[in-house]
Amino acid sequence: MTYCVGMKLDKGLVLMSDTRTNSGVDNISVFRKMFTWQVPGERIITLMTAGNLATTQAVISQLEERTKEPDERDNILLKTPTMFQVATEIGNLMRNIIGERQEANGVKGRGRFTASIIVAGQIKGMEPRLFMVYPEGNFIEASLDTPFFQIGETKYGRPIIIRGYDKQMSLEDGVKLLMVSFDSTLKANLSVGLPIDVQVIGRDEYEASHEHRISHDDSYFSAISAGWGDALKNAFHSLPDYSFYRGDD
Amino acid sequence: MTYCVGMKLDKGLVLMSDTRTNSGVDNISVFRKMFTWQVPGERIITLMTAGNLATTQAVISQLEERTKEPDERDNILLKTPTMFQVATEIGNLMRNIIGERQEANGVKGRGRFTASIIVAGQIKGMEPRLFMVYPEGNFIEASLDTPFFQIGETKYGRPIIIRGYDKQMSLEDGVKLLMVSFDSTLKANLSVGLPIDVQVIGRDEYEASHEHRISHDDSYFSAISAGWGDALKNAFHSLPDYSFYRGDD
Repeated sequence: MTYCVGMKLDKGLVLMSDTRTNSGVDNISVFRKMFTWQVPGERIITLMTAGNLATTQAVISQLEERTKEPDERDNILLKTPTMFQVATEIGNLMRNIIGERQEANGVKGRGRFTASIIVAGQIKGMEPRLFMVYPEGNFIEASLDTPFFQIGETKYGRPIIIRGYDKQMSLEDGVKLLMVSFDSTLKANLSVGLPIDVQVIGRDEYEASHEHRISHDDSYFSAISAGWGDALKNAFHSLPDYSFYRGDD
Repeated sequence: MTYCVGMKLDKGLVLMSDTRTNSGVDNISVFRKMFTWQVPGERIITLMTAGNLATTQAVISQLEERTKEPDERDNILLKTPTMFQVATEIGNLMRNIIGERQEANGVKGRGRFTASIIVAGQIKGMEPRLFMVYPEGNFIEASLDTPFFQIGETKYGRPIIIRGYDKQMSLEDGVKLLMVSFDSTLKANLSVGLPIDVQVIGRDEYEASHEHRISHDDSYFSAISAGWGDALKNAFHSLPDYSFYRGDD
């Protein structure tokens, strides 16, 4: 399984992805699921992937034209004029890769080669954009009503984002919020695991404003994880107490 | 979908179930999913059901022997000597009902007639017990390590129970904790809906210590729902702030 979140704030984009891949609980590996291409001062584009690892690696490899000799490669994403066009290219590429693999194996409908990709970034002269690309090749864009996308094991960590999100929050608070969401997910599902990759794309910076890998000995993440249990208990006790004998019964 | 939780505390059992059933989002009904049989002073047995509604209704109907004339009926659960035997009977009954329906429709493996049942209760002279019965007819019992069972849409509401559970908490706090868990689930998934049924089985009372149906105008649940958002935000802000420039990087 996987857990990745992309969140759009007024001040920019906050991205976070775990690194666990598993084929059964006895076959666990660490793979990066966050991929970035940037031309500092002009554009930054980051992808986060969930689903079949062979499929998502094939998408990344084709974007980087790894079938060609190194000096003939020309990354598609670095020339695409708009983020909308970037999402379109990635959608088409992914749909083709999944389609080929399904056809070769005689799979119909949504088969086991399926994958989803969150696409985030900003190109000079345009707004920061956040897309969710589906295995069918189509995609949706984040809006004021739906300002974040999750892929993979999305449910455990969703309530805290719904409750904590504020589009005016600082980018630092955005990182903190997603860390709490990841901590809730890690506590509930073995197939999502540390280390976690963090990236912040500040508005109009056209490069990663902040990048960090949270590993097992990360003192800040440990403090959040330990503190959140107590903070939740305090929150719980701050609510009015229930009584079996109530006036409004 | 459905959301039901049974939780075992030192002081007894706390049970909560929603009432929404749906076949597509445009075909929503209210059905009670909590069923209780009691001989006050001797035993109380409560079932909570998730899954195919025809299957779970068939289980309940057969337990009540509704195929017989009313004056010939003799509820199985009221004569069974132990809670273990109650869980066994329910498991066998459910497996047979699912099996018949699958066979009649040519379905192999875990088909669409599947269901799960939480069984809770206490019989005089024995401990309060909590079981989860699977569609295959087998079951597990709650223990110190796993003191609660959820069925249906379990993920959204799980992190708060993991964080908030304390076996020594009062039964009232148990109700409050499950209300927060239900509120998180209701906020995230349309297919879980009010009203919610609440039942508390106090240790050695052999009858329902408290029963309540939470409807849309329930003032306490509204206060919990409104207060939890603020309480979570306070909890979030009480955690140490994140900084892009940290000493341990």
